[in-house]
Amino acid sequence: MYYKIIKNNFLKGERDEMNRFIQYNPVKWIFGKGSINRLQAELSQFGKNILFVYGGGSIKQHGVYDEVIKQLEEMEANVYELSGVEPNPRLAVVHKGIGICKEKNIDFILAVGGGSVIDSAKAIAAGAKYEGDVWELIAEGKKISEALPIGTVLTLAATGSEMNAGLVITNADTREKIDWHSQHVFPQFSICDPAYTVTVPRDQTAFGVIDIMCHIMENYFHQGEGTELQDGFSEQLLRMLVETAPRLLEQPDQYEYREKVMYAGTVALNGTLQSGYRGDWTAHIIEHAVSGVHDIPHAAGLAILFPTWMEYALDSRPARFSQFASRVFGVKTAGRTEREAGVEGIQALRNFWRHLGAPAHLSNYGIKHDSLGEIADHVMKRGEFGRFCPMNRDGVLSVLRASL
Amino acid sequence: MYYKIIKNNFLKGERDEMNRFIQYNPVKWIFGKGSINRLQAELSQFGKNILFVYGGGSIKQHGVYDEVIKQLEEMEANVYELSGVEPNPRLAVVHKGIGICKEKNIDFILAVGGGSVIDSAKAIAAGAKYEGDVWELIAEGKKISEALPIGTVLTLAATGSEMNAGLVITNADTREKIDWHSQHVFPQFSICDPAYTVTVPRDQTAFGVIDIMCHIMENYFHQGEGTELQDGFSEQLLRMLVETAPRLLEQPDQYEYREKVMYAGTVALNGTLQSGYRGDWTAHIIEHAVSGVHDIPHAAGLAILFPTWMEYALDSRPARFSQFASRVFGVKTAGRTEREAGVEGIQALRNFWRHLGAPAHLSNYGIKHDSLGEIADHVMKRGEFGRFCPMNRDGVLSVLRASL
Repeated sequence: MYYKIIKNNFLKGERDEMNRFIQYNPVKWIFGKGSINRLQAELSQFGKNILFVYGGGSIKQHGVYDEVIKQLEEMEANVYELSGVEPNPRLAVVHKGIGICKEKNIDFILAVGGGSVIDSAKAIAAGAKYEGDVWELIAEGKKISEALPIGTVLTLAATGSEMNAGLVITNADTREKIDWHSQHVFPQFSICDPAYTVTVPRDQTAFGVIDIMCHIMENYFHQGEGTELQDGFSEQLLRMLVETAPRLLEQPDQYEYREKVMYAGTVALNGTLQSGYRGDWTAHIIEHAVSGVHDIPHAAGLAILFPTWMEYALDSRPARFSQFASRVFGVKTAGRTEREAGVEGIQALRNFWRHLGAPAHLSNYGIKHDSLGEIADHVMKRGEFGRFCPMNRDGVLSVLRASL
Repeated sequence: MYYKIIKNNFLKGERDEMNRFIQYNPVKWIFGKGSINRLQAELSQFGKNILFVYGGGSIKQHGVYDEVIKQLEEMEANVYELSGVEPNPRLAVVHKGIGICKEKNIDFILAVGGGSVIDSAKAIAAGAKYEGDVWELIAEGKKISEALPIGTVLTLAATGSEMNAGLVITNADTREKIDWHSQHVFPQFSICDPAYTVTVPRDQTAFGVIDIMCHIMENYFHQGEGTELQDGFSEQLLRMLVETAPRLLEQPDQYEYREKVMYAGTVALNGTLQSGYRGDWTAHIIEHAVSGVHDIPHAAGLAILFPTWMEYALDSRPARFSQFASRVFGVKTAGRTEREAGVEGIQALRNFWRHLGAPAHLSNYGIKHDSLGEIADHVMKRGEFGRFCPMNRDGVLSVLRASL
């Protein structure tokens, strides 16, 4: 989402009822089986020179590649393909895309894939209209005044990038993985057909669910008061995912489960849950640094770091953790302190993610003590942070060590 | 919202997991105390000729009128005022506004008020760019290709019109009250400051809550399956309103309660709850005909008609009513049929609304048997309807008679 906090007392340690906010999200969200049939109609208002961005070969397996090409040919578009976008998408492929845009006078960028493909397309869209190097935009958090229009066909439920204005790109040279936002990179439309996710492998499916849950929880842990609506929405989404994910892993071709997860992935990060308070995002910030240096799957990093961060942050507001434990995992709270219930909730979350197949330790990926310093350096580049629980370098190292 | 169902099996009596849908809502939602300070910035991209639409004198009492005028003067706008918009807004004031737009070459319409003012502004915006009579657009459900841009400053939490593309206008000559939708009348921005609603009188406050609850419930009673997310969001909103409304009526100047209700009013009808299934809207359709003929407050009509419709529709899907009763009003379901729990839920709703001060009978407004035929004629002009529970003329008369 494009989401701007006008006043954020929480940074100063104060609280009030609800933050003032601006919510703006002009993405046309086209959801459901067969929604690819809208593609030509949506593209008709743009020019004919189209950059078609995708990842590996998976989109050729489940038919979406052929369908997109067929529709683009019917409308006599000039199609330039850019494939090979990988998870933790790299600056190199973005540079390549920007080169094509400038050389071929591209009018529109069509991203077909998951979050990595969409984020790359967003970076290309911004870079194509920017004089300098796109990495300068991202690393320095610069603002832009225009970008090429993009549209998406989603084939993986996870990042929510299909309906927001954010991106995350990795610079392999500097080992930095950085997020950036601009309302100019909102997709014009996103075609979300759960049927395209039926062939997603087991581990990617589980990682998608974990990523979605983390997006909800990053927002959920805030210091605001009087947010029972946003709380209730978040808890409902989390309960649904906790119930649906194990069933989906057992029956991966069950459309109904794919549908629920894809729907949740978009709602988790399109502004619906974020209006009125501001979450923490510490686990994401640390994870970006970890996978910038070590190229591990984003959701695997989150599955390890998020519970460790929760333990670190627990005493900042035990009531919040107790509520989470009780409403998401049904942990009994009677006769126990909020802290005790909170601890049990964190354990329930960890168990749930392990049951889905997530790793429990950074050392599973060969990450050792000796690289924690470099990771912490990357994390601290933007200074101290943490709206829910203040974080400095010592805190980051503490969470990292507990995650080994 | 602009909300388009691509496929709607329910009309044919079939069911599937979730409807395909398109959700699109480009309104910039600016929420919170003091958000009026954004007005100049939002207006800066439009021209200087501004039509300022408002209702009676209430906006002069709580300071918003002075604040708007101050900001418009500072930006050296040419301001044309159109005041006197009433509840159940009339075509006459719309015609007057269209005349000003054409004569003064208006660039932008600023609506300051509640749903009636915003709906009138939307109709003026559409009519100003339309060759024929605006009533022809509305009554015949015609499509348009452009409208003047509008923005709103909300002073009454109720209709949700501040963040959707719908309007309802009454033609006093034909006694018709008709709704119409076009994505060209989405507000560019809506400034929603709960502080501006602190002075809203008791009955209007209660009617606002009832209107919001009805918007949620009209969507809630659908024939879809697998919609626990949307159900959970709707139930959370309803529970919050059931809890907050009585407190608000006791402490009308409590900002926190005003904030919750204003937030709920926008979310109830901005597309968040509507994606994935399609509700019924029978009570709204009948109410529009009632207040078209008798000019009673919209929410008063709903408070009478909605429970009566529920009783009429109960046997179409008792499980839905049982779920509503249990999750919104805490009705016990153990050892009872779904129908029995449903009946108790309807009674709980009726009691709650009476406690807020809502009327119970159409006869309270002097409506008698002899006018039910004319009302039913208006209702049936668009043919048979009812997605949750099929309605024909006999059904409409049955609901009306039970509401006397």
